[in-house]
Amino acid sequence: MSAIKSMDKLVALCKSRGFVYQGSEIYGGLANSWDYGPLGVELKNNIKKAWWKKFIQESTYNVGIDSAILMNPMVWVASGHVGGFSDPLIDCKDCKVRFRADKLIEDYLKAKGIEGVVVDGWTNEKMMEYIRENNIPCPNCGSTNFTDIRKFNLMFKTYQGVTEDSKSEIYLRPETAQGIFVNFKNVQRTSRKKIPFGIGQIGKSFRNEITPGNFIFRTREFEQMELEFFCKPGEDLIWFDYWKKFCYDWLLSLGLKKENIRFRDHSKEELSHYSNATTDIEYLFPFGWGELWGIADRTDFDLKQHMKYSGEDLSYMDPVTNEKYVPYCIEPSVGVDRLAMAFLVDAYEEEQLEGGDTRVVLRLHYALAPIKVAVLPLVKKLSEEAFKVYDELKKWYMVDFDETGSIGKRYRRQDEIGTPFCVTIDFESLNDHCVTVRDRDSMQQVRIPIDQLKRYFDEKLSF
Amino acid sequence: MSAIKSMDKLVALCKSRGFVYQGSEIYGGLANSWDYGPLGVELKNNIKKAWWKKFIQESTYNVGIDSAILMNPMVWVASGHVGGFSDPLIDCKDCKVRFRADKLIEDYLKAKGIEGVVVDGWTNEKMMEYIRENNIPCPNCGSTNFTDIRKFNLMFKTYQGVTEDSKSEIYLRPETAQGIFVNFKNVQRTSRKKIPFGIGQIGKSFRNEITPGNFIFRTREFEQMELEFFCKPGEDLIWFDYWKKFCYDWLLSLGLKKENIRFRDHSKEELSHYSNATTDIEYLFPFGWGELWGIADRTDFDLKQHMKYSGEDLSYMDPVTNEKYVPYCIEPSVGVDRLAMAFLVDAYEEEQLEGGDTRVVLRLHYALAPIKVAVLPLVKKLSEEAFKVYDELKKWYMVDFDETGSIGKRYRRQDEIGTPFCVTIDFESLNDHCVTVRDRDSMQQVRIPIDQLKRYFDEKLSF
Repeated sequence: MSAIKSMDKLVALCKSRGFVYQGSEIYGGLANSWDYGPLGVELKNNIKKAWWKKFIQESTYNVGIDSAILMNPMVWVASGHVGGFSDPLIDCKDCKVRFRADKLIEDYLKAKGIEGVVVDGWTNEKMMEYIRENNIPCPNCGSTNFTDIRKFNLMFKTYQGVTEDSKSEIYLRPETAQGIFVNFKNVQRTSRKKIPFGIGQIGKSFRNEITPGNFIFRTREFEQMELEFFCKPGEDLIWFDYWKKFCYDWLLSLGLKKENIRFRDHSKEELSHYSNATTDIEYLFPFGWGELWGIADRTDFDLKQHMKYSGEDLSYMDPVTNEKYVPYCIEPSVGVDRLAMAFLVDAYEEEQLEGGDTRVVLRLHYALAPIKVAVLPLVKKLSEEAFKVYDELKKWYMVDFDETGSIGKRYRRQDEIGTPFCVTIDFESLNDHCVTVRDRDSMQQVRIPIDQLKRYFDEKLSF
Repeated sequence: MSAIKSMDKLVALCKSRGFVYQGSEIYGGLANSWDYGPLGVELKNNIKKAWWKKFIQESTYNVGIDSAILMNPMVWVASGHVGGFSDPLIDCKDCKVRFRADKLIEDYLKAKGIEGVVVDGWTNEKMMEYIRENNIPCPNCGSTNFTDIRKFNLMFKTYQGVTEDSKSEIYLRPETAQGIFVNFKNVQRTSRKKIPFGIGQIGKSFRNEITPGNFIFRTREFEQMELEFFCKPGEDLIWFDYWKKFCYDWLLSLGLKKENIRFRDHSKEELSHYSNATTDIEYLFPFGWGELWGIADRTDFDLKQHMKYSGEDLSYMDPVTNEKYVPYCIEPSVGVDRLAMAFLVDAYEEEQLEGGDTRVVLRLHYALAPIKVAVLPLVKKLSEEAFKVYDELKKWYMVDFDETGSIGKRYRRQDEIGTPFCVTIDFESLNDHCVTVRDRDSMQQVRIPIDQLKRYFDEKLSF
C-alpha cells in the first residue's frame, strides 16, 4: 500500500473513530487547526504522562514547571525571537502570490531532482542570489519577477490591558523553553538542585507558520514537551550524547519501530551561531522523513541573553568547588502532536487473517492505548453481569463497555482503536466467575478469574 | 491569625518552596501572570488528574476532548462573546483613570457598609443611574465627573495568516465550553453515546480582565475544567441537581473543609436570559467568599446558536423513542488555578506542638500532594542504602530524596510542602530491612519492611 493511501486511511480512521477532528469543523474549519476527540485526548494524555514519568518523575536530575503562555515581551527580545524568529517571504510581482523563499528553492530542487543542496541556514542574500541565478519561476504564474525577500515574524501578537495607556503588545509564546530559562534561578533556589539538573515543561506554543500542513505534523497551535538540562561548560557534549540516547530509547520503549527512526546531525552550516551541536531524531512519516525531536546544545546563550536584558545574575555557584559559572544547556524538544501522529502511523496495520479476512489494528503500546480494556457481554442478556466488571475496572483504567453488534464486530472495533484487551463475559462466567481475556495482537484468549483481573492488567499495563 | 496575614504567608510559602512564582519575574513580571514551579505543577496536575478520573474515566456518562484554543471567529459570534462578553468601563473625566462600573459601585457599597444590593446583572443604564443618584466619587481624585459607561470586550485578539489578504482576526478562547459545543455532533457520532451524556475538557482560556487579582484567583490566562452534559429537555433540572451534588462531593472527597464551601443560587435577576438555573459553589478565601465552581443549566441555547450560525443540524435523534430534539445542557465549570488556591488555603496550618514549637503543615489530600513520599537517610553514611529505596519508589510516585540537615529539619520541610509520608533509613535498616514511615498529620511512626513499602503506599495513596 502506498504511503499516501495509508495516510488518507489513517486520517479517515482518526476522524471516524474520534481521535482527531478538523477544528471548528461546523464553521468550515480554521486553517490547519485540529481538535482531539475522546480517543485522541487519551492518546495525547498518555504520551504526556509517559514523558513526564520518564523525564521528570523517575529522573533523579529533573523537575517540572508550568509557566504562563503570555510573558513579558522583553523575554522575546532577549531570546532573539523579536529580531530573528521569522520566515523569509517573497512575493511574485505579477500574480501577487506570496511564498516562503527557502521552500521555493527546495521545491525547485525537488522538481529538478537536484540533491545535496541544503537551504537551511542560508542568508536572505544567498537565497535571493540563488533564485535569480537559476531563474526560479513563480509556481503560480511562471513569472520570474519577484520582490526582495522580507522577514515575517512568526510570533502571534496580542494586546493586554484595557486602559489605552497601559495596553501593551505581547506575544503568544512560540516555545515553552524561555519560560524555563527565565525561571532558572527561582527553580534552582527553591528545589535546591545542584548542577547538573534539568527543568522540564509541557505546554502549548503558537507559531504563525506560512506553511502548516501534513495533518497534525505542523500546526500553528501545538503542544511541546521541552527539557532544558543545565550542566557545567565543557561537560555539555557528554550530556548532549546522554539525552540523545535517552530520547531515542524512550521512543523505542514506547514501541516505535527502529527502522522508522534515524538521527540527523545538523551540519556546521545549519547550526545556530550559539549551538555546539544539534541533532534531530527523524521519523519516516508517509510524506517522508520529518523532524520528531530536536536535541540541541545551546551552550550558555539563553541564560547569558537573559542576564544581559534583565540585569539579573543567572550564574551558578558550585557549592563544592566554589566555581562560579553560567551553565551550559542541552535542550531536547519534541512536539506532542507530531509524536501522536508518529505513534498512530507506526501502529496502523491492515492485517490479513486466515480465511481471507482483513482487520485494521492499531498496535499502539499499551501505555499509549486510549482504552486499555473493553468489557463485552457475549449477549445482551449478560449486560448486567458485564457492567459490574466494567464498573470495577474503570476505577483503575480507561475502560469501554460495548454491548452492540456481534462479538466479532466488537473485537474489530477495539482492534481499530488499539485497545489491548477485550474481556468477554459469557454464560459460563455466571458459574465459574471467570472471563475470557482476548489479546489484541495475538488474538489469543485466556480464561481469568474476575477477582484477579486487576492484578492481571496491572502487570500487563505497567510502564 | 488574620486572613490577610495568612494569605501573605501562603504566597510567601508558594514562592519560597516552588509552588508559584511571579510570571516573567526577572523582567519585573507581567501584570498578574504566574508560573507554577516544581511543586505547583505537580499540584495542578494532581487536581486535573483527580477531575479527569472522576468526571471522565470513572463516569459511565462522560468522555473527554481537547479542542484548539484558536477557533473560527464565527464560533464567538454565535456564542454571543463578540457581541456581549464585555466589561462596563467608565472613565473619570478629570483624572482620566478608568474603572469597571460594577466594581466602582460595589466598592462604594462596601465602603458605606450598605448590604443587600447585588450589582450583578444590572444594565449599563441602571449602573449609570445609580452612580449619578448616589454621587459616587472617583476613588482616585474624588470628582463625580464621569464619562458614560462603555463596553470593553474581554477577548484577546490576534491575527492568523501571513499574506495580507488571508490575514484574519481571531480570538484566544475565553472559555473551553464552545470547543465542546461545536464538536457535539462529531463526538456523539464517533463515541456512539446516547443522551444523557457529557463531554469534558481541560484547557487554557484567556480573558483580558480589567481587574485581575488576588494571587492566582483571577488571572488573564487560566486553566478550566469544563463539562457540558447533554440531556433531554425537561430532565435538565434533575441533572442540574445531580451535577451540583457531584461537584460538591468531589470537593469534599479531596478534603476541602465543609465549613469553607457553600452554594449560592443565582437570583432571577442575575441569571443569563437563556439559563434555567445557575448555582455557584463558593469557597471562603482569605479575601472573602469567592466563586469556585459555576454550575449552569444553559438549556439548548448554545447548540441552537451554533445551528443558526453554522447551518448544521445539531439535534439529536433518540434511537429508542424516535424523538428528535436539541438537547439541553448542564455546565459545571471550574478553574484549576483558583481550585489550587482553595486547596492550598484550606490545607495551610500553623500547628502548635508540645514543647512550644510551631510547625507549618500543608494538610493536602494525599491525591493532591505534589510529593507523595520523601526518602531520608538518617545520616549521610546511609545515603547509598536510602537511595536504593528512593530509586525503587520513584517508579510509582513522585518521591523526594533529602540528605541535608537534621532529620527534624527535613521532616519540617516535608510538612511544609504537604508530603504525606517520610521514609527514614537508619542503621537498624541494614539489619532488619525495615524503615520508619512517618505520617505527616499524626507524626506517628511505624516500622515497615522495605519490600512491603509499595503495597503500603498503594493502599494509602489510592484515590
